[in-house]
Amino acid sequence: MATVTLLSDEEVSADALAVFDDIRATRGTEYINNFWRALAHDPVMLRATWDRLKHVMAPGMLDPLVKEMIYVAVSTANGCEYCVHSHTAAASAKGMSPQMHTELLAVIGMAAQTNALATALQVPVDPAFDPNS
Amino acid sequence: MATVTLLSDEEVSADALAVFDDIRATRGTEYINNFWRALAHDPVMLRATWDRLKHVMAPGMLDPLVKEMIYVAVSTANGCEYCVHSHTAAASAKGMSPQMHTELLAVIGMAAQTNALATALQVPVDPAFDPNS
Amino acid sequence: MATVTLLSDEEVSADALAVFDDIRATRGTEYINNFWRALAHDPVMLRATWDRLKHVMAPGMLDPLVKEMIYVAVSTANGCEYCVHSHTAAASAKGMSPQMHTELLAVIGMAAQTNALATALQVPVDPAFDPNS
Amino acid sequence: MATVTLLSDEEVSADALAVFDDIRATRGTEYINNFWRALAHDPVMLRATWDRLKHVMAPGMLDPLVKEMIYVAVSTANGCEYCVHSHTAAASAKGMSPQMHTELLAVIGMAAQTNALATALQVPVDPAFDPNS
Amino acid sequence: MATVTLLSDEEVSADALAVFDDIRATRGTEYINNFWRALAHDPVMLRATWDRLKHVMAPGMLDPLVKEMIYVAVSTANGCEYCVHSHTAAASAKGMSPQMHTELLAVIGMAAQTNALATALQVPVDPAFDPNS
Amino acid sequence: MATVTLLSDEEVSADALAVFDDIRATRGTEYINNFWRALAHDPVMLRATWDRLKHVMAPGMLDPLVKEMIYVAVSTANGCEYCVHSHTAAASAKGMSPQMHTELLAVIGMAAQTNALATALQVPVDPAFDPNS
Repeated sequence: MATVTLLSDEEVSADALAVFDDIRATRGTEYINNFWRALAHDPVMLRATWDRLKHVMAPGMLDPLVKEMIYVAVSTANGCEYCVHSHTAAASAKGMSPQMHTELLAVIGMAAQTNALATALQVPVDPAFDPNS
Repeated sequence: MATVTLLSDEEVSADALAVFDDIRATRGTEYINNFWRALAHDPVMLRATWDRLKHVMAPGMLDPLVKEMIYVAVSTANGCEYCVHSHTAAASAKGMSPQMHTELLAVIGMAAQTNALATALQVPVDPAFDPNS
Repeated sequence: MATVTLLSDEEVSADALAVFDDIRATRGTEYINNFWRALAHDPVMLRATWDRLKHVMAPGMLDPLVKEMIYVAVSTANGCEYCVHSHTAAASAKGMSPQMHTELLAVIGMAAQTNALATALQVPVDPAFDPNS
Repeated sequence: MATVTLLSDEEVSADALAVFDDIRATRGTEYINNFWRALAHDPVMLRATWDRLKHVMAPGMLDPLVKEMIYVAVSTANGCEYCVHSHTAAASAKGMSPQMHTELLAVIGMAAQTNALATALQVPVDPAFDPNS
Repeated sequence: MATVTLLSDEEVSADALAVFDDIRATRGTEYINNFWRALAHDPVMLRATWDRLKHVMAPGMLDPLVKEMIYVAVSTANGCEYCVHSHTAAASAKGMSPQMHTELLAVIGMAAQTNALATALQVPVDPAFDPNS
Repeated sequence: MATVTLLSDEEVSADALAVFDDIRATRGTEYINNFWRALAHDPVMLRATWDRLKHVMAPGMLDPLVKEMIYVAVSTANGCEYCVHSHTAAASAKGMSPQMHTELLAVIGMAAQTNALATALQVPVDPAFDPNS
């Protein structure tokens, strides 16, 4: 269960529905996933979040699939069940093959391990890593 | 300060020095960064960590730069100061431009925000995300 | 499922039942939520946790509703599903309106995003933030 | 050290300088803290982050001091050194007394403890917490 | 639901089945838990993870039960539902009594609380903690 | 720098000094570490934290050294720099040898890695882990 209700198209405000329309047009599907239906209680936050997400995840110097895999990595480290599922599905839809998924998992696992070791050891940062050096 | 001493080449065991040699040969530099000098107290863990890291970060379906950016993303979410520095430097060395860094940061920030919102809202996972559906 | 059984009134020790009685009297309800029933395997920890919680969450310089919203914020950042639910419900019971909930979520999301950015950028702390300056 | 340089007023773009101007006008101070100087490498993210922050932290159903304390709580749970400092300073500037700080800390500590216990016990969510019940 | 399918013995590769065989022989049970069935999509990662786990969790200066309790502690702090369950069960199978479980929980809760307080207070590390002092 | 001042013996209240006295007597040293000097702004929280800590870390079914190592594990996963240092030092003072430290690190690293993998894979909990099964 969510801590708020998931709003149907009939229940949301006109402002929220306009965001739903943009999500549908951008993604080329009628389906609006639960995250947006929960967020629709606050049309201003819904709009701000969607607009920024659309901008951030658009093709740029990094391609959208790479961005989705980075999103999965952050979501995993933050322990967000919903986000792991939604962005793994999004990455697959954008072309992530099972082999690419496997490599993504391997990097995530490796990073988590060495993050823990570096923190437990309190390794001092090498001066060589200074971007100004 | 670290919770252990950082071992010089003269202080490490022969097994650890062999790992240092492989790091140097693989990376084409004499420099051994502090993480490995801290880990060298346990030559078995040093060897296991380096061997797995070398394998995981090698070119595959994902290119090494993408893997480094994923590493930065995980390290950020885990709050590992050392790892953020070392892998941002590694990504730059592998060709991450300032513009790519900027996009990486934007995705990390976006993911952190929606991770928090999805968790606070306890949004239920959409059945549509099921890889078996 | 829990990693321990949830103890009924009949199953707990006299010491644990005394804590249940205090919870009931303090909250004005017969209902004991699952957290306390799981914790009741250790009457000493149950007592210590409840006594401290009752003290910490009591009216002070901050009112109880503000304290509940802070509790929701921490629970979200820590990814505790149970605690997000229990303290969102508690905040609502203490008067958190849907609009207040929305503002709480907006701050949580904003903080999560800038936390990630500040960590990824490893921004040095401004001397101006020193409470002794 | 940061993973990017901190940009002076002379080094930022016109778009970034316009954001700095708005920060100065909004806060009534000439001082621009390091976070914004690091973020200024990406004027679009700088603008998006500042505009959203200004909106989210403005007076609403929750007063700005309560919002700052929630920000401190999230930043603590996320382990963001920079953000703990900057938002503790901001909360103090907005009127958080030492006694209020103390109560904030007590709630943060209490929440962290029960978050860990609930997670270790994997306590199932009570149906009574359902907002639709 | 998982983000990948859980592979049966009939569906895994010969390399993966060899790892399953070693898990069965090492643990003295036919049962392969879901984690390994999910990981089996990548026989190389399955092998690397299992081999390292078997080595790390074997009797050494610390006994296996102590290691399992440390594993539960980390898994709790990282918010990994699966791992809390699997390693609590493993600890119980290795002799963790309810009283030991209770003490483990008390330490985890205490640590989480003081971790949060030390972070919120940004307490500077005492020079006395320096292992070289 | 801390977000509060570190209080000297001369600056703390009589109630706080009484806690310092108990810390000194219990530990057999005159030295009071920074954590308690920061916490002393709130004598009630100082007392509650110290009393509970003393109880929790006392010999029980688990010996004090095992408890300290569990504390280090949680502190690492929570990314608390201060706590990693203070409890690694405490564990060493209680008899943790370099070899034991190495094994502790290996378990922490292993757990962090499999925590991340289980979360990224969203592995469903095996019914066999049910303590009531």
